[in-house]
Amino acid sequence: MSRPSGRRPEQLRAVKLTRNYTKHAEGSVLVEFGETKVICTASVENSVPRFLRGKGQGWVTAEYGMLPRSTGERMAREASRGKQGGRTLEIQRLIGRSLRAAVDLAALGENTITVDCDVIQADGGTRTASITGGCVALADAVQHLVETGAIKQSPITNMVASVSVGIFKGVPVLDLDYAEDSNAETDMNVVMNSAGGFIEVQGTAEEAPFSEEEFQQMLALAKRGIADLVKVQKMALAQTPS
Amino acid sequence: MSRPSGRRPEQLRAVKLTRNYTKHAEGSVLVEFGETKVICTASVENSVPRFLRGKGQGWVTAEYGMLPRSTGERMAREASRGKQGGRTLEIQRLIGRSLRAAVDLAALGENTITVDCDVIQADGGTRTASITGGCVALADAVQHLVETGAIKQSPITNMVASVSVGIFKGVPVLDLDYAEDSNAETDMNVVMNSAGGFIEVQGTAEEAPFSEEEFQQMLALAKRGIADLVKVQKMALAQTPS
Amino acid sequence: MSRPSGRRPEQLRAVKLTRNYTKHAEGSVLVEFGETKVICTASVENSVPRFLRGKGQGWVTAEYGMLPRSTGERMAREASRGKQGGRTLEIQRLIGRSLRAAVDLAALGENTITVDCDVIQADGGTRTASITGGCVALADAVQHLVETGAIKQSPITNMVASVSVGIFKGVPVLDLDYAEDSNAETDMNVVMNSAGGFIEVQGTAEEAPFSEEEFQQMLALAKRGIADLVKVQKMALAQTPS
Amino acid sequence: MSRPSGRRPEQLRAVKLTRNYTKHAEGSVLVEFGETKVICTASVENSVPRFLRGKGQGWVTAEYGMLPRSTGERMAREASRGKQGGRTLEIQRLIGRSLRAAVDLAALGENTITVDCDVIQADGGTRTASITGGCVALADAVQHLVETGAIKQSPITNMVASVSVGIFKGVPVLDLDYAEDSNAETDMNVVMNSAGGFIEVQGTAEEAPFSEEEFQQMLALAKRGIADLVKVQKMALAQTPS
Amino acid sequence: MSRPSGRRPEQLRAVKLTRNYTKHAEGSVLVEFGETKVICTASVENSVPRFLRGKGQGWVTAEYGMLPRSTGERMAREASRGKQGGRTLEIQRLIGRSLRAAVDLAALGENTITVDCDVIQADGGTRTASITGGCVALADAVQHLVETGAIKQSPITNMVASVSVGIFKGVPVLDLDYAEDSNAETDMNVVMNSAGGFIEVQGTAEEAPFSEEEFQQMLALAKRGIADLVKVQKMALAQTPS
Amino acid sequence: MSRPSGRRPEQLRAVKLTRNYTKHAEGSVLVEFGETKVICTASVENSVPRFLRGKGQGWVTAEYGMLPRSTGERMAREASRGKQGGRTLEIQRLIGRSLRAAVDLAALGENTITVDCDVIQADGGTRTASITGGCVALADAVQHLVETGAIKQSPITNMVASVSVGIFKGVPVLDLDYAEDSNAETDMNVVMNSAGGFIEVQGTAEEAPFSEEEFQQMLALAKRGIADLVKVQKMALAQTPS
Repeated sequence: MSRPSGRRPEQLRAVKLTRNYTKHAEGSVLVEFGETKVICTASVENSVPRFLRGKGQGWVTAEYGMLPRSTGERMAREASRGKQGGRTLEIQRLIGRSLRAAVDLAALGENTITVDCDVIQADGGTRTASITGGCVALADAVQHLVETGAIKQSPITNMVASVSVGIFKGVPVLDLDYAEDSNAETDMNVVMNSAGGFIEVQGTAEEAPFSEEEFQQMLALAKRGIADLVKVQKMALAQTPS
Repeated sequence: MSRPSGRRPEQLRAVKLTRNYTKHAEGSVLVEFGETKVICTASVENSVPRFLRGKGQGWVTAEYGMLPRSTGERMAREASRGKQGGRTLEIQRLIGRSLRAAVDLAALGENTITVDCDVIQADGGTRTASITGGCVALADAVQHLVETGAIKQSPITNMVASVSVGIFKGVPVLDLDYAEDSNAETDMNVVMNSAGGFIEVQGTAEEAPFSEEEFQQMLALAKRGIADLVKVQKMALAQTPS
Repeated sequence: MSRPSGRRPEQLRAVKLTRNYTKHAEGSVLVEFGETKVICTASVENSVPRFLRGKGQGWVTAEYGMLPRSTGERMAREASRGKQGGRTLEIQRLIGRSLRAAVDLAALGENTITVDCDVIQADGGTRTASITGGCVALADAVQHLVETGAIKQSPITNMVASVSVGIFKGVPVLDLDYAEDSNAETDMNVVMNSAGGFIEVQGTAEEAPFSEEEFQQMLALAKRGIADLVKVQKMALAQTPS
Repeated sequence: MSRPSGRRPEQLRAVKLTRNYTKHAEGSVLVEFGETKVICTASVENSVPRFLRGKGQGWVTAEYGMLPRSTGERMAREASRGKQGGRTLEIQRLIGRSLRAAVDLAALGENTITVDCDVIQADGGTRTASITGGCVALADAVQHLVETGAIKQSPITNMVASVSVGIFKGVPVLDLDYAEDSNAETDMNVVMNSAGGFIEVQGTAEEAPFSEEEFQQMLALAKRGIADLVKVQKMALAQTPS
Repeated sequence: MSRPSGRRPEQLRAVKLTRNYTKHAEGSVLVEFGETKVICTASVENSVPRFLRGKGQGWVTAEYGMLPRSTGERMAREASRGKQGGRTLEIQRLIGRSLRAAVDLAALGENTITVDCDVIQADGGTRTASITGGCVALADAVQHLVETGAIKQSPITNMVASVSVGIFKGVPVLDLDYAEDSNAETDMNVVMNSAGGFIEVQGTAEEAPFSEEEFQQMLALAKRGIADLVKVQKMALAQTPS
Repeated sequence: MSRPSGRRPEQLRAVKLTRNYTKHAEGSVLVEFGETKVICTASVENSVPRFLRGKGQGWVTAEYGMLPRSTGERMAREASRGKQGGRTLEIQRLIGRSLRAAVDLAALGENTITVDCDVIQADGGTRTASITGGCVALADAVQHLVETGAIKQSPITNMVASVSVGIFKGVPVLDLDYAEDSNAETDMNVVMNSAGGFIEVQGTAEEAPFSEEEFQQMLALAKRGIADLVKVQKMALAQTPS
């Protein structure tokens, strides 16, 4: 078997995290998983949603969108269709849950951080790239709160990262690109934290059911890939942004 | 540890499938997982969505809703709010994908079957009950197509069933009810077919990340529970409806 | 002339009221007018809409919906179409006005009771069944307020019930089922209270105008039918629910 | 008892019908019931809605709106709120049904006539004025079809007119203005044709239930008022528009 | 060249302003630019939008609509389509900005005036007629505030009026009617105040780009036309309304 | 007077056009006017909108959006609010009209080109940057049609570019950034083609009316600025994209 990209089964695409990508947001990261490119911005607001008022804790939420021509064929703009599709809502709920797992919400104080993940070029794995890049944007926004004295110390408890795994032509592979994703028998997105805990596992049989053995093989690949992604996140955060 | 219901960790709630629950639909099943009650109707239409026209195959899709007072507190009616929420869309996409895994769409011919799952009383596990009951309604609707001569033989390849598992007070448990679900550390929904293949696995850390060991324990419980649910499905289908 | 069901012109269908049909709502009634089945739940909220704040009175309102396959052909789900149709809005406004006529709103205190009427199987007369069953659910919810000490005594002043009458093949008939309703020359819905007062009269010529004589004949049938329905309501409320 | 306007109980307001009020529509009538003013335009389209295609018949439908400041307090514009309210939908359904009773739809051919009723000043009775004026606009539009040779002869079978009646301070009165309407115990809208047949009767107890005697008194007033309105319609149509 | 209407290039259509056209609004004007007729009502509310609260100033805003058959072919009603089109929003934003230029918002106090411009008959120039008539309605509403003592003196600083100019068959013309507007090479809307200052200039090349010389010629025509319109406004306001 | 950026009154910001910015679209340009950054993609579809079918011509249209945190404060996402705001619709209509002026629609054949302009960082002038960059993306998409043989020769007749001018602290200035734009007395957007013809002129008095002299000064600045922008466009198109 050979992957369309020539990668080895356990090989991630080139992953790149560019901090301070745009100038207004408290955290702003361009994340690239190969040809997949997502702008993740983290915006701070000094208030919380109604359901949390007076509880002395903060909130982290996410929104997701794709530029109409981020894909091979132009998609209708959701703003002009008048609603977000089910796939969009599902993905942004996943991103939000995943990023909340990186934060001690009580330690965040009554602040809300909204992470917007906007795909400017799609080539498979936009949700995993969004989580991985969004967590770095979130860390920068939290750091902004610390530096401005809004909170005493960082409420980030762990980094959170995500990768896809799947069965492609019968072989378990890591970090599927679009050529693989659209032909995979099974697709699974895994979210873990930097301490090795599982946050989310979402596996879907696309063509045929998958066996428990395949499941275990995919899990092993995911654990390995996420460990590498966390290293990339930590290196990016260690650098002093220009 | 004791479960609020007094059940053993590996014990399902009482599961009941009532076929021909309402009179108009080609398939109509009331599914009960304990106090959770969902009406599943399968409706046949002799056409396919635009994206499948002329491809000589059929389609299976699902919609999901909750009566406003199916829950402890009344929820706003989605029809009057003017849109379906993200949770609703996510669940009906899951039900649709799961039920398509039960059918050979080419053998279905150019027919569409829509499975509506409407929760009349909620007590945890509405999506797993919907899949389990919806598959029986689907089987009845397909049988209607065979009996009326619309298609030659049944395109059902397997039964599909679903159950939730979770970690409640540190212990892996099967088929969580609301009292457990709202306090579980981890919640996982598993969809499998009657041949033991995995269709979907969706695990979410609600409070703390889960370990691989916990994951494996939950998977084992789910396999056992689904095998039992498939038996209940087959018994229901074996009966001649009154 | 013979009615499709074989009933006499002045004969109601079998009417059945099952209290405590679902477990969460303060009032929950399954109402059956023959094959027409509607779940009516009454939900109590300790507040009033904005336009009544500070006026020291309560409010009763209603919402109406049909499950997509409650009818012979599947209807699109209003939640997914993004709005409630004109027929739905018209019916729920009628139910709300009718039920408010059963209650002394000042004596209700600053509480709102929302009566949801969801049709699970339709065979003509869903709005009249909704009013008749909804009034029993309302009575149960009010009783809950009395028993929990929220209000001193019941603000129910009368029972309210409703039935349809029409001209079918030239003959005035009571309580039309779908086979009659879809072929009637005239259709009239009448709402009355248990003291014999009129709450609403809505008569519509479907095919040809109706004469004053036909009008009077239909009114006479309706009065008789509603008197019987009130008896069924009172018997149901007299029973101690299991 | 004296009516706020000083009218006798059985007295209509000054009724005025101005044909050709605007220049583009095939039928265009300004109808005035006292201070209530509604522009009714009838627009012809040479096609029918999807559900009537190929059935060789026509269709008549209506839409209703109020200018935001046609009322004492400015109402939010429905176009900017993004939906028509329940009252609007209810009224335009009533107008459409009523006007269809004036026409032999088979004789109309495959044409659709849309009657738009837009209230520019409201003082009670906007729906009855809309029906009464809309029928004249409809007659003009039909005449246009005859004159242009689109159809051979007029499919108008009867004129249709409407008036409100009510119980105000205990006295049955005809054609309620806003000062009466907002304080009436009972309000009833009656639609009849020029042959004395009933098209619609919609009576609502606003404060207290009404008795059968009151009902009969209101009906008698309505019959008398509608007979007068039909005369005004016929006089207007007899004039050669300037 | 001859204009379809026979007017000279620099000739306005007959302009008519009828104050107190409807009875409820604080300001109500029917404005006619030839066959174009717009009802402009100005409604006063004793509060300001959220973004101005506590700033001690008022607000002026506008909404625009067309009756469905104000035009040659019936247009779908925006309320029933569920949203206002881009053209509508663009026009009402222009009207609002223009009218705010007539008022010292600080001197208006914390009051909001909403000017509704509803086109009952369209023949080109509906937005310019709306601004010109709307300003008179605004002046009447402000006068109402002064007379009722809500504010001490009028915050109106200038009258504001508007006219269109264009290039029709190569010739610059003033105040285009529909026959010209739909065939003009260039169309420009100009808004000025009574002191000769420019408020808005919006020129659009419809078929071919326009030259600077054409631009200057159109500007000169517009200045002349607006000066005349301001005279008509002042005459209308000088009359004591009946 | 000094501009916040230190630029001379007649000085453009640094303008940069990066072709082939994303990989899927037939034309894809990142346009930068200083800190304002917009991704413009041009997508080709081999069909035309309904209103042009069978007329043997093509169509060019545009859509505009801003990422939620492209601005100093996060804006609500239009897709999640369920509609595009008036400003968005107004801008995308302007972009579409402007770009159609660059193309001979008959020579385009029955193809539609949609230009999406998505602002990733805003600092004033997003609409002028969108037009200027969008025209280059349009040229690339048209070139793609020529190279693939879909059309014989390029239907581009002229380049179209746009710039803003305004009065800032009493001085006419070119190409306003946000610091100027939010404090300008007058703001004018001018669209011209490479032959010196005017396509659109939209001037708005923000604080005080502007005089004819100021108007002429702004026009002169705009002509000069657009001539420079056209040079930048032509240089970008002359380069062989990497």
